[in-house]
Amino acid sequence: MSKLPNTSTSIFTIMSKMATEYNAINLSQGFPNFPVDQRLTKIIASLAKKNVHQYLPMSGYPPLLQKIGSLVLKSYQRTVQPENEILITAGATQAIFTTIMAMVKTNNEVIILDPSYDCYEAPILLCNAIAVRVDLNDDYTPNWNRIEKAFSSKTKMIIINNPHNPTGKIWTNTDFESLEKLFEKYLDVILLSDEVYEFITFEQHHIAVHTRKKLRHRSVVASSFGKSFHITGWKVGYLVAPEYLMLEIKKVHQFLVFSVNSICQVAISEYLDLVSVNQLGAFYQEKRDYFRKLLENSRFKLLPCEGTYFQVASYASISDENDVDFCKRLVLEYGVAAIPISSFYANGKDIKCIRFCFAKDNKTLEEAAKRLCMV
Amino acid sequence: MSKLPNTSTSIFTIMSKMATEYNAINLSQGFPNFPVDQRLTKIIASLAKKNVHQYLPMSGYPPLLQKIGSLVLKSYQRTVQPENEILITAGATQAIFTTIMAMVKTNNEVIILDPSYDCYEAPILLCNAIAVRVDLNDDYTPNWNRIEKAFSSKTKMIIINNPHNPTGKIWTNTDFESLEKLFEKYLDVILLSDEVYEFITFEQHHIAVHTRKKLRHRSVVASSFGKSFHITGWKVGYLVAPEYLMLEIKKVHQFLVFSVNSICQVAISEYLDLVSVNQLGAFYQEKRDYFRKLLENSRFKLLPCEGTYFQVASYASISDENDVDFCKRLVLEYGVAAIPISSFYANGKDIKCIRFCFAKDNKTLEEAAKRLCMV
Ligand SMILES: CSCCC(=O)C(=O)O
Ligand SMILES: CSCCC(=O)C(=O)O
Repeated sequence: MSKLPNTSTSIFTIMSKMATEYNAINLSQGFPNFPVDQRLTKIIASLAKKNVHQYLPMSGYPPLLQKIGSLVLKSYQRTVQPENEILITAGATQAIFTTIMAMVKTNNEVIILDPSYDCYEAPILLCNAIAVRVDLNDDYTPNWNRIEKAFSSKTKMIIINNPHNPTGKIWTNTDFESLEKLFEKYLDVILLSDEVYEFITFEQHHIAVHTRKKLRHRSVVASSFGKSFHITGWKVGYLVAPEYLMLEIKKVHQFLVFSVNSICQVAISEYLDLVSVNQLGAFYQEKRDYFRKLLENSRFKLLPCEGTYFQVASYASISDENDVDFCKRLVLEYGVAAIPISSFYANGKDIKCIRFCFAKDNKTLEEAAKRLCMV
Repeated sequence: MSKLPNTSTSIFTIMSKMATEYNAINLSQGFPNFPVDQRLTKIIASLAKKNVHQYLPMSGYPPLLQKIGSLVLKSYQRTVQPENEILITAGATQAIFTTIMAMVKTNNEVIILDPSYDCYEAPILLCNAIAVRVDLNDDYTPNWNRIEKAFSSKTKMIIINNPHNPTGKIWTNTDFESLEKLFEKYLDVILLSDEVYEFITFEQHHIAVHTRKKLRHRSVVASSFGKSFHITGWKVGYLVAPEYLMLEIKKVHQFLVFSVNSICQVAISEYLDLVSVNQLGAFYQEKRDYFRKLLENSRFKLLPCEGTYFQVASYASISDENDVDFCKRLVLEYGVAAIPISSFYANGKDIKCIRFCFAKDNKTLEEAAKRLCMV
């Protein structure tokens, strides 16, 4: 009877709620706990008195569209037409939902690489389409044999997430070449690239779809100011896509939400004049390194982390509980909330790994690590 | 090939853009042009510095849910459970889209009463369902013969809009009784009641679905702070529905947008302690009366207006142009933008009427009226 019979409360809601209830340190749901840049909060405060409280245009605040265009140009040497190829959305989740809703039709297939963030499947099902799940390799690189086998004449879209939540993995040039080869054979397939952590990368920058000449004319790229400016609650994201795709996306957007919070759009637009996203990687790299160092003497085995603000850790040598039970016990007995990796697998695969969010001030990371070292 | 082949740029976007281009007075798209209550802008300014920039819970800021519960209780003597029966949305448009997406399945039929606001049809089509259009009577009351004929075993939902955009009409007790009788026969039909103008009513208050004991357990009610607090750009709306329906709506909401702008939710929650919606009707009634008086000597024939901030006017005695052409000429020759009523009819029916938004400061209304009196 339900259109989404297998949907229940998201693990992010469950774990954040549990963290609050048991007064645990919340390293589960991905959001920063440190203060927002004062320059940005000052902008909001001064905008409040101005005339920024009514609808902005459907596609977004025109100066913000321009500045995103400049950001894409500067970061990736891709020229986009702001008015036609960029859309401001109420967060990346709405961006992704809207794209799928606009593109995917009954019985189409959409390829998702597992483990994956949880928001891709529902819009596919609501389109009466099929989510084709392909597991990544054990080291979280794409498995091109399996992906190639998953492609068929029914494939309408493949969704990638780079840098990758939860594993922090980024795609290699060879990965992109493999995808490009497949795209030469499957001419109607669209790439939806979730790059919300695009500016949170460490030793090397991720390869943005914006830079792939063979892909970008068939790609929709989703990003999020929530991640880039530590304002997950603002719910301002954006899409970049060629005009022929954007036209369809805007048709859905117009009736799905029409427009996005005005004051926050204007604030971000003004803030983009003051700030660069270039420091973001270094900022989070320091946090990652610090958190990893703090856990050096713990019994957790830390997986590599190339980007995002998430650290995956194996507890295989600690316990053979399933990862959901382990996470619950971690809250109850040690006062730290994390996310079980099984919740990123459609088939619930349990590899005895959990995810910590390290977008927290150092004191929080220290106290969390102290507790985790006792496990 | 498009999933929404008949969708083009919305008339609200077109007319607002034209108003800007030709520097016309914009009485087209519905939004207030007067300053927002300073108490509210002060709240935003002071919140900016606080820790309100990360995700709020998926259903909404808990104190805001509580206060909406109190508002519904106080206004309509309906008791709702805030956590289970209320959902904060990114505006009423997202509320309506999400409800339809959660409820309506392939080949279901959804009844819409024309003229109607333009956001109902797209989500129905995206569900592979059928929008069954039923014209209102010539005086914009529901035509119960036609509505009864439109009901069938395929009917899943009927959407009503009360107070009604564009005509300002409100439903009578007899209308509700007719609907209730139909609902006794069609037990699976859900009512989606768009009541975003619920507090903008004049001589008499509208009858809220909240007060209809025979309907509310099968109804989803959409409302909007944008309309009630002159903040259309904040994009904060809400849904009230019984838990068994809300559970399904939340499943879609979780993956469509996840959560809504935090700072604006907290601000509205605090503002609700300071303000009452009781004055809103009187405030807009004065505007309506003033605007109507100003147009007394014009050649427009003003239709009755019982609620909303829209005034419909017939230009039949002025011109036999179609209403779109007339609106365009009004911008070009007289510098006033309005909305052609044909755009509220699926079949484009042209009754030689246009809609003015009177949510404007008096100076704007005076200047607009001066120009309209020259037509
Ligand atoms: C929208 S809640 C989840 C936030 C997030 O991106 C994550 O924790 O992975
Ligand atoms: C979302 S733009 C349209 C605003 C509105 O409610 C109207 O003008 O009818």
